[in-house]
Amino acid sequence: MMTEYKPKPEHKFTFGLWTVGNTGSDPFGASVREKITPVELVHLLAEVGAWGVNFHDNDLVPIDATPSERDQIVRDFKKALAETGLVVPMATTNLFYEPIFKDGAFTANDPKVRAYALQKTIKAIDLGVELGAKVYVFWGGREGVESDATKDPITSIKRSREAMNYLCEYVKDQNYDLKFALEAKPNEPRGDMYNATTGHMLGFIETLDYPEMVGVNPEVAHEHMAGLNFTHGVAQAMDAGKLFHIDLNDQAFGRYDQDFRFGSVNPKSAFFLVKLLEDNHYDGSRHFDAHAYRTEDYEGVKDFARGCMRTYLILKEKAERWNADSEIQAIVAEVNADDGSMNQYFGKYSSDKVNALKSHPFDRKAIAQRGMKYERLDQLTIEVLLGAR
Amino acid sequence: MMTEYKPKPEHKFTFGLWTVGNTGSDPFGASVREKITPVELVHLLAEVGAWGVNFHDNDLVPIDATPSERDQIVRDFKKALAETGLVVPMATTNLFYEPIFKDGAFTANDPKVRAYALQKTIKAIDLGVELGAKVYVFWGGREGVESDATKDPITSIKRSREAMNYLCEYVKDQNYDLKFALEAKPNEPRGDMYNATTGHMLGFIETLDYPEMVGVNPEVAHEHMAGLNFTHGVAQAMDAGKLFHIDLNDQAFGRYDQDFRFGSVNPKSAFFLVKLLEDNHYDGSRHFDAHAYRTEDYEGVKDFARGCMRTYLILKEKAERWNADSEIQAIVAEVNADDGSMNQYFGKYSSDKVNALKSHPFDRKAIAQRGMKYERLDQLTIEVLLGAR
Amino acid sequence: MMTEYKPKPEHKFTFGLWTVGNTGSDPFGASVREKITPVELVHLLAEVGAWGVNFHDNDLVPIDATPSERDQIVRDFKKALAETGLVVPMATTNLFYEPIFKDGAFTANDPKVRAYALQKTIKAIDLGVELGAKVYVFWGGREGVESDATKDPITSIKRSREAMNYLCEYVKDQNYDLKFALEAKPNEPRGDMYNATTGHMLGFIETLDYPEMVGVNPEVAHEHMAGLNFTHGVAQAMDAGKLFHIDLNDQAFGRYDQDFRFGSVNPKSAFFLVKLLEDNHYDGSRHFDAHAYRTEDYEGVKDFARGCMRTYLILKEKAERWNADSEIQAIVAEVNADDGSMNQYFGKYSSDKVNALKSHPFDRKAIAQRGMKYERLDQLTIEVLLGAR
Amino acid sequence: MMTEYKPKPEHKFTFGLWTVGNTGSDPFGASVREKITPVELVHLLAEVGAWGVNFHDNDLVPIDATPSERDQIVRDFKKALAETGLVVPMATTNLFYEPIFKDGAFTANDPKVRAYALQKTIKAIDLGVELGAKVYVFWGGREGVESDATKDPITSIKRSREAMNYLCEYVKDQNYDLKFALEAKPNEPRGDMYNATTGHMLGFIETLDYPEMVGVNPEVAHEHMAGLNFTHGVAQAMDAGKLFHIDLNDQAFGRYDQDFRFGSVNPKSAFFLVKLLEDNHYDGSRHFDAHAYRTEDYEGVKDFARGCMRTYLILKEKAERWNADSEIQAIVAEVNADDGSMNQYFGKYSSDKVNALKSHPFDRKAIAQRGMKYERLDQLTIEVLLGAR
Repeated sequence: MMTEYKPKPEHKFTFGLWTVGNTGSDPFGASVREKITPVELVHLLAEVGAWGVNFHDNDLVPIDATPSERDQIVRDFKKALAETGLVVPMATTNLFYEPIFKDGAFTANDPKVRAYALQKTIKAIDLGVELGAKVYVFWGGREGVESDATKDPITSIKRSREAMNYLCEYVKDQNYDLKFALEAKPNEPRGDMYNATTGHMLGFIETLDYPEMVGVNPEVAHEHMAGLNFTHGVAQAMDAGKLFHIDLNDQAFGRYDQDFRFGSVNPKSAFFLVKLLEDNHYDGSRHFDAHAYRTEDYEGVKDFARGCMRTYLILKEKAERWNADSEIQAIVAEVNADDGSMNQYFGKYSSDKVNALKSHPFDRKAIAQRGMKYERLDQLTIEVLLGAR
Repeated sequence: MMTEYKPKPEHKFTFGLWTVGNTGSDPFGASVREKITPVELVHLLAEVGAWGVNFHDNDLVPIDATPSERDQIVRDFKKALAETGLVVPMATTNLFYEPIFKDGAFTANDPKVRAYALQKTIKAIDLGVELGAKVYVFWGGREGVESDATKDPITSIKRSREAMNYLCEYVKDQNYDLKFALEAKPNEPRGDMYNATTGHMLGFIETLDYPEMVGVNPEVAHEHMAGLNFTHGVAQAMDAGKLFHIDLNDQAFGRYDQDFRFGSVNPKSAFFLVKLLEDNHYDGSRHFDAHAYRTEDYEGVKDFARGCMRTYLILKEKAERWNADSEIQAIVAEVNADDGSMNQYFGKYSSDKVNALKSHPFDRKAIAQRGMKYERLDQLTIEVLLGAR
Repeated sequence: MMTEYKPKPEHKFTFGLWTVGNTGSDPFGASVREKITPVELVHLLAEVGAWGVNFHDNDLVPIDATPSERDQIVRDFKKALAETGLVVPMATTNLFYEPIFKDGAFTANDPKVRAYALQKTIKAIDLGVELGAKVYVFWGGREGVESDATKDPITSIKRSREAMNYLCEYVKDQNYDLKFALEAKPNEPRGDMYNATTGHMLGFIETLDYPEMVGVNPEVAHEHMAGLNFTHGVAQAMDAGKLFHIDLNDQAFGRYDQDFRFGSVNPKSAFFLVKLLEDNHYDGSRHFDAHAYRTEDYEGVKDFARGCMRTYLILKEKAERWNADSEIQAIVAEVNADDGSMNQYFGKYSSDKVNALKSHPFDRKAIAQRGMKYERLDQLTIEVLLGAR
Repeated sequence: MMTEYKPKPEHKFTFGLWTVGNTGSDPFGASVREKITPVELVHLLAEVGAWGVNFHDNDLVPIDATPSERDQIVRDFKKALAETGLVVPMATTNLFYEPIFKDGAFTANDPKVRAYALQKTIKAIDLGVELGAKVYVFWGGREGVESDATKDPITSIKRSREAMNYLCEYVKDQNYDLKFALEAKPNEPRGDMYNATTGHMLGFIETLDYPEMVGVNPEVAHEHMAGLNFTHGVAQAMDAGKLFHIDLNDQAFGRYDQDFRFGSVNPKSAFFLVKLLEDNHYDGSRHFDAHAYRTEDYEGVKDFARGCMRTYLILKEKAERWNADSEIQAIVAEVNADDGSMNQYFGKYSSDKVNALKSHPFDRKAIAQRGMKYERLDQLTIEVLLGAR
């Protein structure tokens, strides 16, 4: 059993520049931490043991940088990566901060805004690829409305699709080795946002021209805002072969976007998530899209980053314990017991099978009598989680 | 302008036997209304002006009815339909009431339960088709968990898919003219339910063997339980050609399943929904899946049913007024104004286009200056809604 | 019947400097509107027809202003008030923006922060009184935690109480004609905030040394964040004689703090609120604590402000119509009918009464038979609201 | 350190007859467990190690029992208590199940219903006292509305107050040694319920004639339905001397009333609750108001009951560890450090103090610089909770 909970490259722990670089401003308060440079952030991440670093275009290169400023920034950043060994597995575009995006980017009513959003994304894709990114995330931070009087939702879906198709073509045209990962959020900063959940994104992807290039980037906090079981959404993405990236953090249900340290709000739901990822050998980044409390200085930011990774590793060990616990496994085996008697009806459909099934006598009440031992199974899970077994 | 708000066949207003037949029991209280027969319910629906009636298998035929009892019930029901002119556009299976389904139906851990669920559904499909149903709804009322220790979510998705594929084969084998409509719900009666939203269902459908046979049945209350904008989910289903049915009712966000009278909780969100359906010429049933308050007797049940339809028609008229309001339309035109200057970059992708776009100079700040008049547009909408213009 | 919906002084419509002066920055985006001065904001409010203007100390006087700068600002502001006729019915303290308050103000763990918060509030009270305020609002924007490991909640309550008692003493000592109004919020910007709802505030007030000086300032959005019926909370405050102020805006349940235009999210709940206030002759300010969508320029800000007041007046007229509708009033009378037969048991307690009551034979099932006509009553309400009767 | 987590009388663990006796029916499904008698339930509770048993009047005595049937039931129940040593610390009235209460009990519009509710409660108080109850709980399961058109909320508050005053008089008149504990719930089974949270109840109590007789009975699930921090609400009740009883269970935020096993949804929030109760020496019952999953037979019901108590004891031990952890305590001491320099301003108010405070120079920015180490403190808490330290 691992006991040190020390992050290693194989864990693929990554952070965004915007996460450890968050300066703590919020709708009701000013920044509490001085802004530090991307190079400094890379070194901070190396110090705490991260494997990779991700960014929005303007986290790295200010929006009004000249080409030569841009190039110098990229050189410095690459040097910091080389010095620390950190990698850049993912990049993304900031399509929400600037006032031009106040009505959205790909779904804005103004065609100039839509064209500018495409241009900005294309340049940001180039930047991400230059730095080694293999996954490109899309979070449509302003793709929504405060009032459905202001945009037709079907038109908005069409505009989103056109943009994604165009950008897929661009990636193919450039022969980039890059996949897209779409990130859903139900609301905030817009009143309601389109493609509200990972489920909606999975549906949307199937309407694209190149669905095989596009997967999802589910985020704990975003699904919890809608009070949804995050593990179920991730399982659906994995089942569909679409879990291209994941954003780990934590968040109470039905609240503003809290982006708290991974596992810090509800360790039980975090446990089931880690167990799902590890049991199914998810091999992408474990990306922490969270930030330190506003009460913290940069030592606290490091505590935050270390805590994210440490809690993940503790929960990974818990998942191993759960899988190895004989009482737990005995119950799992018992509740899934199959005497094979139904196999005659399952599997490939045939008229004969269905006819046989139609006349099979089921003793409905007898089958219902069986206690499922789920209270015991869940209590044992709680006790593994709390270290009481 | 319509002024009587009188339901007509072309409005395709339908109710379930379980809606007007609901006797008012809830987790904390006994029934308050005497149970009345399906035949009586058909006559009640005819009296209030409904076009159609839908049912779960056991709403019509008790689960332990003998074949001859079943046949008599069906004869009586057909007679009532003939007398009243009501049609049966949709049917569904009750896979949640009986104790045998306490751990789910298609996703239950016990293979006998899964087989029984298939058998029960097949028989219920036969019954639905016999009575004229063209749409068959699936609501997996127990397909979920209280604890993710008790079922593997990926296994559950696979089990759901196998069941749906099997049932699609059955429908094809029988040459039934029948489409499936999947209905999502995030939780209740299970702690968490799989395929939590209409979005998740749209994603799930694309993993089936015959996706073209399968669409969705979004329900206002179910998406509102997750605090989601229902109109957006319906728009996505329409965009994907998957809006096969719809369940109209109302519900506050983040609450137990309330199933209130259509439009009675938030008339503004109901307005945008009706506008979407009518503007896009949705031609399926307007099905009310709701029930009367527990304070009501059967006169109150009729008030409830009449209110659902009347509010729909009032909102339909409001949508027409909105579309005809010159100030509203002027703002809509203005905010969507397109001088065509961006057309050179949009449409079918080409390397030339993207290169031109990359070097287009955008005046980011100037574009951002423009006020969008959305406060005014939404206020005008409120005033149309309140009858103040 | 009023038909112009024109704001008049008797309506006591007020706005905060921070509402129409909001420049549209949010957690994901920069300001979209240029900051304008308090004097300009007073003129803007006069132009749209407001009666009064309220402020946080630093809305008017920047935190680092010198005494002479402060005096000049106050003179200019008074001049603008005199020119426009606007009054200042309420003032409050900003105890949340500056980094010093990152762990709270009155409940911060650092005693220097607690002392500074008292000092700042005392000076802000002086400023408010100088400008004519009769109500002083307390919103403890940072009084809470992200983790209960960081503060003991009982200690926090004690610290809050000590601060309030001290400030009550100060007001008495100064002979100010000033009442306090406490404003609750469940969360945001802190993970959880103390005294989460108006109900908690009403309980807290009774533990103070001078409860008669202290009431509440309920805000629609804050109670809606917790999914609560706002009208019920306001009714409780009115019943207790504690409705000293009110913050009107709108907000979906279970979301980030949206602060939308009054009545724009759910006109039905806004209707019941207006009806409660008007039926019970609430005579305080109708204060709009909301701001324009981020899509707007200052013309849109005026649209927003006009919309708040206009919707209030439309709903006020609807309340009058509801009270005058004979069918509605007939149902209300019927469901509240009282034949007086129970009066022998009600009223002042006596042993004789209770003994008589104990032996009174009630026909439980007969009483339960009665249909309450609430579906009809609510449908009629919807129709009044939609202008369909 | 305790390691067996064995329930003992000093822990005061109690269950309601309705909790372990719950047969698993819900809005979508039939009972899954046979009903067993109160006597059998007492023996079941004794077997699992509970200290006490509580009941609603009709949990013990059916509503239509004759006086002699009632007396026999009470004799049998007392015998079971004597045989097992279980006590009855609390009793309550069922004012929600019967159709007569469909519009509420104390707030019903029909005066006959209000009188009947008083009669039923008085008789149930007599029964509770006869069996030894010292706390009498009021949960107004139907005191609310689906539409505010149907009841005036201020009238409803007045009716509630009259009922409580009357019942206080009755208890005094009878010289019963009995306190009242009011239990809040925001909604379900009514659309909205009055006195929605523990905070509202604390406010309401202060408007009663005998507030000293009346406290609160907060329930985890009920506050979680509104997404509130339960520990904060309990702290407020303790601070006010009003924590007369407590209902322990668990529940996701923003959902239907789940009533899950204590600590099973979010062990972190359960930890802070147990810590609060134990640190402050709460000496009332630890009452579990929850029920087993519907998948369980009576062996599962016992697993459920044992799990509630065991998790409480595990968390109690965690709280002791937290209090004894030197790194944690060092941070707590550091963040609360007080050099006494502010003491000159705090404490009893005086004009001199306030004048001195007004002129004290605070270095606002320097004070704000300090990192609070809350990320570290919370991470250490998580690690204590997970048994990783």
